[in-house]
Amino acid sequence: MQPNRPYEAGYAGVGLTYGRVPFAIDPAEFADADVVIVGAPFDEGVSFRPGTRFGPRAIRQAEDVGAPAGRPNMELGIDPFTALRVVDAGDVDVAPAFLQQSHAALRARVSEVLAADAVAIVLGGDHSLSTPVMQAIADRHGADGYSVIHFDTHADTGLDDTTPHAIPFSTGVKEGFLLGSNIMQIGLRGNWPYPHEFDWMREQGFRWRTMSEVVELGIGAVVREAIEFARARAPRTYLTIDIDVLDPAFAPGTGTAEPGGLMTRELLFAARAIASEVDLCAMDLVEVSPPYDHANITAMAGHRVVYETLSGLALRRSGRPARPERS
Amino acid sequence: MQPNRPYEAGYAGVGLTYGRVPFAIDPAEFADADVVIVGAPFDEGVSFRPGTRFGPRAIRQAEDVGAPAGRPNMELGIDPFTALRVVDAGDVDVAPAFLQQSHAALRARVSEVLAADAVAIVLGGDHSLSTPVMQAIADRHGADGYSVIHFDTHADTGLDDTTPHAIPFSTGVKEGFLLGSNIMQIGLRGNWPYPHEFDWMREQGFRWRTMSEVVELGIGAVVREAIEFARARAPRTYLTIDIDVLDPAFAPGTGTAEPGGLMTRELLFAARAIASEVDLCAMDLVEVSPPYDHANITAMAGHRVVYETLSGLALRRSGRPARPERS
Amino acid sequence: MQPNRPYEAGYAGVGLTYGRVPFAIDPAEFADADVVIVGAPFDEGVSFRPGTRFGPRAIRQAEDVGAPAGRPNMELGIDPFTALRVVDAGDVDVAPAFLQQSHAALRARVSEVLAADAVAIVLGGDHSLSTPVMQAIADRHGADGYSVIHFDTHADTGLDDTTPHAIPFSTGVKEGFLLGSNIMQIGLRGNWPYPHEFDWMREQGFRWRTMSEVVELGIGAVVREAIEFARARAPRTYLTIDIDVLDPAFAPGTGTAEPGGLMTRELLFAARAIASEVDLCAMDLVEVSPPYDHANITAMAGHRVVYETLSGLALRRSGRPARPERS
Amino acid sequence: MQPNRPYEAGYAGVGLTYGRVPFAIDPAEFADADVVIVGAPFDEGVSFRPGTRFGPRAIRQAEDVGAPAGRPNMELGIDPFTALRVVDAGDVDVAPAFLQQSHAALRARVSEVLAADAVAIVLGGDHSLSTPVMQAIADRHGADGYSVIHFDTHADTGLDDTTPHAIPFSTGVKEGFLLGSNIMQIGLRGNWPYPHEFDWMREQGFRWRTMSEVVELGIGAVVREAIEFARARAPRTYLTIDIDVLDPAFAPGTGTAEPGGLMTRELLFAARAIASEVDLCAMDLVEVSPPYDHANITAMAGHRVVYETLSGLALRRSGRPARPERS
Amino acid sequence: MQPNRPYEAGYAGVGLTYGRVPFAIDPAEFADADVVIVGAPFDEGVSFRPGTRFGPRAIRQAEDVGAPAGRPNMELGIDPFTALRVVDAGDVDVAPAFLQQSHAALRARVSEVLAADAVAIVLGGDHSLSTPVMQAIADRHGADGYSVIHFDTHADTGLDDTTPHAIPFSTGVKEGFLLGSNIMQIGLRGNWPYPHEFDWMREQGFRWRTMSEVVELGIGAVVREAIEFARARAPRTYLTIDIDVLDPAFAPGTGTAEPGGLMTRELLFAARAIASEVDLCAMDLVEVSPPYDHANITAMAGHRVVYETLSGLALRRSGRPARPERS
Amino acid sequence: MQPNRPYEAGYAGVGLTYGRVPFAIDPAEFADADVVIVGAPFDEGVSFRPGTRFGPRAIRQAEDVGAPAGRPNMELGIDPFTALRVVDAGDVDVAPAFLQQSHAALRARVSEVLAADAVAIVLGGDHSLSTPVMQAIADRHGADGYSVIHFDTHADTGLDDTTPHAIPFSTGVKEGFLLGSNIMQIGLRGNWPYPHEFDWMREQGFRWRTMSEVVELGIGAVVREAIEFARARAPRTYLTIDIDVLDPAFAPGTGTAEPGGLMTRELLFAARAIASEVDLCAMDLVEVSPPYDHANITAMAGHRVVYETLSGLALRRSGRPARPERS
Repeated sequence: MQPNRPYEAGYAGVGLTYGRVPFAIDPAEFADADVVIVGAPFDEGVSFRPGTRFGPRAIRQAEDVGAPAGRPNMELGIDPFTALRVVDAGDVDVAPAFLQQSHAALRARVSEVLAADAVAIVLGGDHSLSTPVMQAIADRHGADGYSVIHFDTHADTGLDDTTPHAIPFSTGVKEGFLLGSNIMQIGLRGNWPYPHEFDWMREQGFRWRTMSEVVELGIGAVVREAIEFARARAPRTYLTIDIDVLDPAFAPGTGTAEPGGLMTRELLFAARAIASEVDLCAMDLVEVSPPYDHANITAMAGHRVVYETLSGLALRRSGRPARPERS
Repeated sequence: MQPNRPYEAGYAGVGLTYGRVPFAIDPAEFADADVVIVGAPFDEGVSFRPGTRFGPRAIRQAEDVGAPAGRPNMELGIDPFTALRVVDAGDVDVAPAFLQQSHAALRARVSEVLAADAVAIVLGGDHSLSTPVMQAIADRHGADGYSVIHFDTHADTGLDDTTPHAIPFSTGVKEGFLLGSNIMQIGLRGNWPYPHEFDWMREQGFRWRTMSEVVELGIGAVVREAIEFARARAPRTYLTIDIDVLDPAFAPGTGTAEPGGLMTRELLFAARAIASEVDLCAMDLVEVSPPYDHANITAMAGHRVVYETLSGLALRRSGRPARPERS
Repeated sequence: MQPNRPYEAGYAGVGLTYGRVPFAIDPAEFADADVVIVGAPFDEGVSFRPGTRFGPRAIRQAEDVGAPAGRPNMELGIDPFTALRVVDAGDVDVAPAFLQQSHAALRARVSEVLAADAVAIVLGGDHSLSTPVMQAIADRHGADGYSVIHFDTHADTGLDDTTPHAIPFSTGVKEGFLLGSNIMQIGLRGNWPYPHEFDWMREQGFRWRTMSEVVELGIGAVVREAIEFARARAPRTYLTIDIDVLDPAFAPGTGTAEPGGLMTRELLFAARAIASEVDLCAMDLVEVSPPYDHANITAMAGHRVVYETLSGLALRRSGRPARPERS
Repeated sequence: MQPNRPYEAGYAGVGLTYGRVPFAIDPAEFADADVVIVGAPFDEGVSFRPGTRFGPRAIRQAEDVGAPAGRPNMELGIDPFTALRVVDAGDVDVAPAFLQQSHAALRARVSEVLAADAVAIVLGGDHSLSTPVMQAIADRHGADGYSVIHFDTHADTGLDDTTPHAIPFSTGVKEGFLLGSNIMQIGLRGNWPYPHEFDWMREQGFRWRTMSEVVELGIGAVVREAIEFARARAPRTYLTIDIDVLDPAFAPGTGTAEPGGLMTRELLFAARAIASEVDLCAMDLVEVSPPYDHANITAMAGHRVVYETLSGLALRRSGRPARPERS
Repeated sequence: MQPNRPYEAGYAGVGLTYGRVPFAIDPAEFADADVVIVGAPFDEGVSFRPGTRFGPRAIRQAEDVGAPAGRPNMELGIDPFTALRVVDAGDVDVAPAFLQQSHAALRARVSEVLAADAVAIVLGGDHSLSTPVMQAIADRHGADGYSVIHFDTHADTGLDDTTPHAIPFSTGVKEGFLLGSNIMQIGLRGNWPYPHEFDWMREQGFRWRTMSEVVELGIGAVVREAIEFARARAPRTYLTIDIDVLDPAFAPGTGTAEPGGLMTRELLFAARAIASEVDLCAMDLVEVSPPYDHANITAMAGHRVVYETLSGLALRRSGRPARPERS
Repeated sequence: MQPNRPYEAGYAGVGLTYGRVPFAIDPAEFADADVVIVGAPFDEGVSFRPGTRFGPRAIRQAEDVGAPAGRPNMELGIDPFTALRVVDAGDVDVAPAFLQQSHAALRARVSEVLAADAVAIVLGGDHSLSTPVMQAIADRHGADGYSVIHFDTHADTGLDDTTPHAIPFSTGVKEGFLLGSNIMQIGLRGNWPYPHEFDWMREQGFRWRTMSEVVELGIGAVVREAIEFARARAPRTYLTIDIDVLDPAFAPGTGTAEPGGLMTRELLFAARAIASEVDLCAMDLVEVSPPYDHANITAMAGHRVVYETLSGLALRRSGRPARPERS
C-alpha cells in the first residue's frame, strides 16, 4: 500500500509524489510508464542565491487538491494522469556539497528512464542538471538525435571559468553531446551572455529570441517558430525551462531573478503548445528556490508548467485534437 | 461622534470602515443609503489554505489616505463617496467554527440591505458566502430577477461532496435560487471543474470564458459580452469577484491560488465597466487571505476592485457620461 | 519498496513520514509497533488564526537529516528509532470543512493503535483533537484508567458556547470520558479561562500551574510534581502539548499565541523527563500553524518535542538509566 | 451605537479600540474615566528603521478575543476592564512628516486626560512622544511632582545633535520638565549612551540598571528597587516602556533592536508589579514597528504589557490583595 | 585601492557602489565623469509607509554579478560602464529626522555634478528629492532650460497642506524652478490628484497620460509621445521615475502602492528608449522601500531601470544605432 | 578617501566595513593592526539550508549607527574601536561553487593576518571555514600552540563521509593541525554527533558541555571552566562560534537550526568574558544565513557577538579592569 494513498485534502498525506502518482524507484517499474518524474534536489552549481535543493519537494507539494481528484486540462479536454502512465521515481541520490556525484546519479537515472522509452521529467534543482540530462539523451539518441527548446533569462553558455549552472549549453557543444544548431532559446535578457559569448553562439548556430523580441512578436509567434525549429532539426526534443524566464513578480523564488520577464500565462501557453506539437524525450523545470518564494507562488507556477507539458504530451499521444471546455 | 472621524493620515484612527464612511449597524439607517458595505469574516468553508476570515479587516484598512480625503475616480470623473450615500454596517455576527450560523447572519443582513433598496457590497470571507447572498437576492427579487457576473479561477459548481466554498453556484441552481442560464463566469482555469461538471453547467445554460479565451479575445471584448449577457437575462445583476481570478503574482494572499490569471489592471477595468453599465443589486469581493499576502498587495487589489465598482455605480446613477481627467 | 527510502539529504525524498520511519496504513501493521504516529490535519475547530491543517506535514518535514541517519538522544544515550518500533500511519481521513467527520476518523484511528497496545502519537491539527483522542483512550481503558499532563497557555475548559478547540477538557469531564481530578495543566496564562471556569475546574479537581508559578518554582520542580501527580492518579498517562505553551518568540507559528511563555529548552526537558517516568498511552503535539511560522522554527520545536517524548519512552522501556554523552 | 460593538470573534469588527472599550473623543467624556488610551502614530523622530506609525493600530488589534469576552487577570484575580473605567480616545491628530505638530497634539491630549484625573496610556509611535507626555505631566503636577520608571535598551539622553526619539530624557532635564534624580532606567545595553552622556546622567542623579545587572540581580530585585525608588522620589509615577528592552527574539518589530534583552515574561511581571505598587499618572508603550514584526508577536507583547499595567492599576485601586487563580 | 575591488561573486565585497563603479566623493573627481550616481537615503517626506531611506543601499546591492563582469546591454549592443565614465559619489549627508538638511545636501551635491557637466542619477529615497534636484537643475540651466518626463502613480502636485513627497511638481511651478508646460507625467491612477489639482495642472500646461490611457494606447506610443514632447520643450530633460508606477505585483516594496500599474518590462523599455533619444541632464529612481519588498524584487527592478537609462544614455553619446544581439 | 566615510545615519554609505573601520586589502596594511576582519562568503559546504554566503554582508550592515558614532562597551568601559586598531580586509576571493578555492584563499588570508601578529576575525560563511583557519593557525603556531573554544549545536566532528561544514574538528585532529585535547565545545544538543563519534571525541580528549549541562550549571560556570581549560592547554586560543548555538528564536537565520539553545544574552556574556581572559589569536562567527533571517535579528546577534569579542580583547590588551557604567 502506498503512502500516497487517496486523500480528499490537498494538505494531507505523507507520500508526496508529483500529482500523487505511484512511486516507482525500481527501473523495472518504468517499463510501462509513459513519463517518469525525477527529482534533482541540488544547488551546488549556482552563482548567486542558493536554495533550489528545496525545489523538487516544493513543486510536488504545490497542489491544493488531494489524490483522488482528476486533473483534466480544460483547454485540451484531456486528463494527462488518465491518458498517460505517469510514475514518480522520487529524488536521485544527491550528495550534499558534492555536485559531481549528484550529476552522475541523475545521468544514470535519466538513462534508465530513456531506456524504458519513457519521457523523463526532471524537477530541479539548479540548471547545471541539464548537463547530465543532455548527456543521457545523447548517450541514447546521439547528439544529432534531439533538439532543444530552452526558456530562460540566461543562455547558460558561459565560455569562461564560471559556475556549473551557467555552462550546460556551452559545455554540451564543446563536449559534443549537443549540436549548437539544434537549440532555440527564448526569453534572454539582462546583461549576460556577453558579446563574445553571443558571437560564439552565432558561430555554433544557436537560435534565440530575446525577451524584447518576445514582447514585440508576441508569445504565440515565437512559440510557433520554436515548434517548427525543433521539428526541423531533430526527431525529438528536450524542453528545458528555467523558472527565471518569468518576471520576478511571478517567480520571486529563484536564484538569479531578472526583472522584465514573461507572465506565467504566457509560459503556460508555451509549454502546452510545444508539448502538443513536438515529440518530447525529456523536459525539466529548474531553479525554483523556496527560501525566496512567497506563498508558494513560484512553486505553483513550476508545478503548472509541468502539468501543461504533461497535458500537451497526453494530447499528442492521443492523436486527437484538443477539445477545450467551452460554454 | 464616530470613531471613524477624519484623520489626515491613512495609518491613524480606530474606526476603520471601508472608505471611512459612516458606520451604520441599525437597518433603519440603511433607508437613506445607496450602498451598504457588509463584512463576512469567515473561512470555515474552504478546501485548502484558510485565512480569509481576516479579509474584511485587511480590505478596509488597505488605504493610504485618511478620512477627509476625497476619492474621485480619475477615469470617470466622479467621487463615489460624494455621489453615493455609502455606509458600512460592520461585520455580520460570525460564529467561529460554525459556518451555518454565519451564513444565516449574512443572509439576514443582506436581506435588510436589499429591503432598503440599497446595493449590498460584501467583503469576504470565503466564497461560500455567495450562497446566502443569492438566497437573499432571490428572496426579494426571485431567482429569475437577477443575473450573475462571476470572476473566478474556479466555477464553484461542485456536484460531488465537497467544501462549501466550492458549491454556491451548483447549489443555487439545484435549490432554485439561481437560474443556470443567468450566470456568466470569467477567468476559469486550472483543472477544475471536471468534465462532468462542465457538462452539467452546459445543460443548465451556464455561460463562461476560460482564462485562455480572455487572453485570446481581450478583456475588453469579454467584458462587453458579459455586460450584454447580464442585461439580457435579468433586470439586475449580482457581481461576484473571487480575488483568485488574478494571477498569484497580483494576489498571493488567497486560499486556492492558480497561476496564469488576470492582471489587476484588467480586473479594475472590468469592475468599473460592468458597474457603469448594468444595474447592480449586490456585489462581493471574496477570498482575500491576509496570512498569505505580502505588503498588503492582495488586500489593496481587493479594496480597489470594490472602489471601481462603487465608482461605476455612481456614474450610472448620475446619468451622465464619464469625464476622465485628461491633459 | 517505500517512498521513504534512505536519503543522505534532509531535503530529498517524497515519502515524508515522521523520522522517515516505515509507513503503515493497515491496522494489522500496528501489531508489532511500539508507537504509531498519526497525523490529524484539521483546524476547523479554532477561534482565531487557522492554519494548523498544515501542521502535520510541516512537523514531519522539520528535519535536516535524511533517513539513514541515526537519531540517538545525547542526554539519554538511546536512539528511540532503534530502541522502539515506530511506524507512521499517515494522516487520518480528514474532510475539509467538516470537523465531526475528521474527529470520527481520528477516534477510530487512535482506537486501532491502542488496540494494538501501541502508543499513539498524534500530530495536530487543532486542539479539538484531544476530544476524540481521549474518547478512544476511555473506550479502551475507562475514564479512570488514565491521567493527563497538559502543557498549554489555555486550559481548554470552555463552559459556554465556544469553538471546539477550546472545550476538550470540559467536554471530557461533562461527558464522562475524563476525570477532572486526573488532569494537571502547566503554563496557563493570559486572560482565559474566566473565573467561573477556574471555579468549575477547582470543583472538578483539576490541578494546574500557571506560567507565573512555573517561573517561580522552576520547570524542574513543576515537572517533578506533574510526574508524581500523573503516576498517583492512574496507571497510564496521556501527554498533550499545545505548542502555544511556548512564548511566541519560540513558536510564532500558532493560532492563539500568548506572550510570556516557556522557552523551548524548558519544554524539551519536560517532555523527555515525563516520558521517561510515566507510562504514556498517547501523546500529541498540537496547534503548529505553518502560515504564521518563520524559517520553520515552530515546526522544528514541535518535531523535537515529539522526539524527546519518543526518547524518554524508549529509555523507560529499556529499563536502564540514562547514559548521557559526557566528556 | 458604537462600531466597537460586541463580537465573538477577535477578527471581526470595525471599531478597533484597545480592549474594545468605548471610544471617547470628547474630553468631556474623560470625566468618568479612570484610564484614557491615546494613540500616537508617528515615527518622524527615529534614527534608524521607521514604521512605528503603524504601532497603535497593530497593538489595538493584537487580540484574539472579541468584545464580550472578559479579560480577568489570572495572577491578580481582577478584570481591569470591569474594575476600571477605560476609554479609548483614538489617535491624536498627527501630521505626517511634521513631528512638531504631532507632538503638540499629543501634549494637548494628555493634558486633557490628566485634567480629568485619569491615567493616560499612550500607544506609540516613537519614543520622542515622551517629550510631550512629560511636558503635560509637568504642566499639571510640576517637574517634581512625578518620578519615572523607564524600560529601554537606550537611555534616550542624547546630548549632541541627534534625532528626537533619542533625547526626551536629556531634553526634559535641560528644559526643566523632568528631574534627573527622579528617573530610573532599566535594561540599558549596546553601545549608547556614550561615556560623556553617562557622566552627565550621573551628575543629574539618574539611576539605572544595565541589562547585565538585571541578569545578575534578577528581574524581581530590580523591579523591587524601582518601586521603592519611584515611591521615594515623588507621589506619582510615569512608566515608559520601549518595547526594544525585549530581546529581538521577542520583539523583532522595532526600530533600533539590540540583542541581549529581556524575555517577555520578565517584562510582563515588571509591568504588573510596578502598576500594582506605585501611583501611575501616565504610561506608554513605544516603538512597536509592524513592518518589521512577524506573526504580530511584537504587537501582542506590547498589547499585553499595557494589559498587565491596567491590571496592576486596577488591583491597586481596589485596595485588596491579589487573588491569583490557583488549583 | 578601492573596497569595491573586483569580485567574482555578487554577494562578496564591502564597497558596494552602483555597478561596482569607482567611488568618488570629491567633486574634483566628477570632472571626467559622464555620470555621477548619488544616493539620497531619506524618507521623512512620506505620507504613508516609510522605509525608502533603505532604498539606495538596496538598489546598489541588487545585483547578482561581481565587479569584473561586464554589463553589456543586449538590446542596444553597448556596455554603459565601458562606454561611459560612471562614478558613485555615495550618499549625501542626510540628517535623520531633519528633511530640510538632507534636501540642502542633495541640492548642493547635484549642483556639483551638473557643474561638472555630468548627468546626475539619484537613488532615492522619497520623491520629495525631486524638489532639490529640480532646484539644482534650474540653478544651472534655468527653469526653461529643461523638460521633465515623470513616471508615477501620483502627480505629486499637491496644492493643499500635505507631505513633502506629494508636492515637488506643484512647488516647482509655484516657486518658479519648473515650467508647468514642460512636464509630462505617465501612469497616473488611483484617486489622487483631486479634480481641483487636475484643473490647476491643466492651467499650468501639464501633459499627462493616465494608466488607462497607457493600456489603451500601448506603452510604445506613449513613450514616443513623451520623447517628442520632451525634445520640443527644452534642450535637456530630467527623467524622474517613481517605482510605484509599477503594479504592486512588480514593486511591492514601496510606500504608497497602487494596484493596476505598469509591468516591469514596459518600464524598462521606456527608460531605455527615452534615454536613447533625449538629452538627459538628470535622472532619479525613487520610493523603493526595502521593508516592504520581497526577495529584493523591487530593488532589482529599480536597479535595472537605472541600468537601462545608463544604457540608453551610452548609446546616444556613442552616436551609433543600436546593435541588438540577434541570432 | 574611503567610501566608508563618516555618516550620521546607519542606513547611509557605500563602504560597509565592519564597524565602518578602514578597509585594508593589502597585507602590508595589516602591520599596524591589532585585529583584521575577514569575510568568508561561502556556503558550498553545508548539508541542509544554504545561504550563509550572504552572511558577511549582513553582519557588517547589521548596525543602526553611522560611522562617527563611538562604540564604547558599557559593561567594560572601553571602546574597542578606539582601543584597538581594527581594519577590515573585505572578503576573500571566493569562487562560487568551488569550495576548495575559497578555502585556499581564506587560509592564505588568515596566514597574512597572523603573520602581522594581528588577530583574525572571520565572518562566515559556513563552518567549513574552520578548516583553513586552523590550518593557518597551526602553520604559524603549531598544532600544540593553540586551544579552541567552540560554541555550537553540533560538534562538527563527522567521521563518515559527510559535508565539509560537519568535519572541521575531526579533520583537524586526523590531519594533525588540531589537538583533540585542546578543544572545548559548548552547547551541543540534538541528535548528532552519534555515539561512535562521541566515543572518538573522548578518545581524542575533547572536552564538551551539552546544552543540558549549560542549563544545569549556568552559563557563568561553564564559561569559567572554558577559560581555565583554554589557558591551561595552550598559550593562545581560537574562539569559534556557530550562531546556531543560539535557540532558533534568537537565530532563525541559520542553516541547521536546533531548538533548545542559548539565549543571546548568554552568548554575549560568554564572548565578552572569554575574550577578556584568554589570548585570542583568531575568532570567527559562522552560519548566519540571511535568507532565513527575519528583521535581521540573527545578523544583529552575530554582529554583537563579534563586538563583545572585540571589547573583551580591548580590555585585556589595556591591562586594566573593567569599568562598567553604573549609576
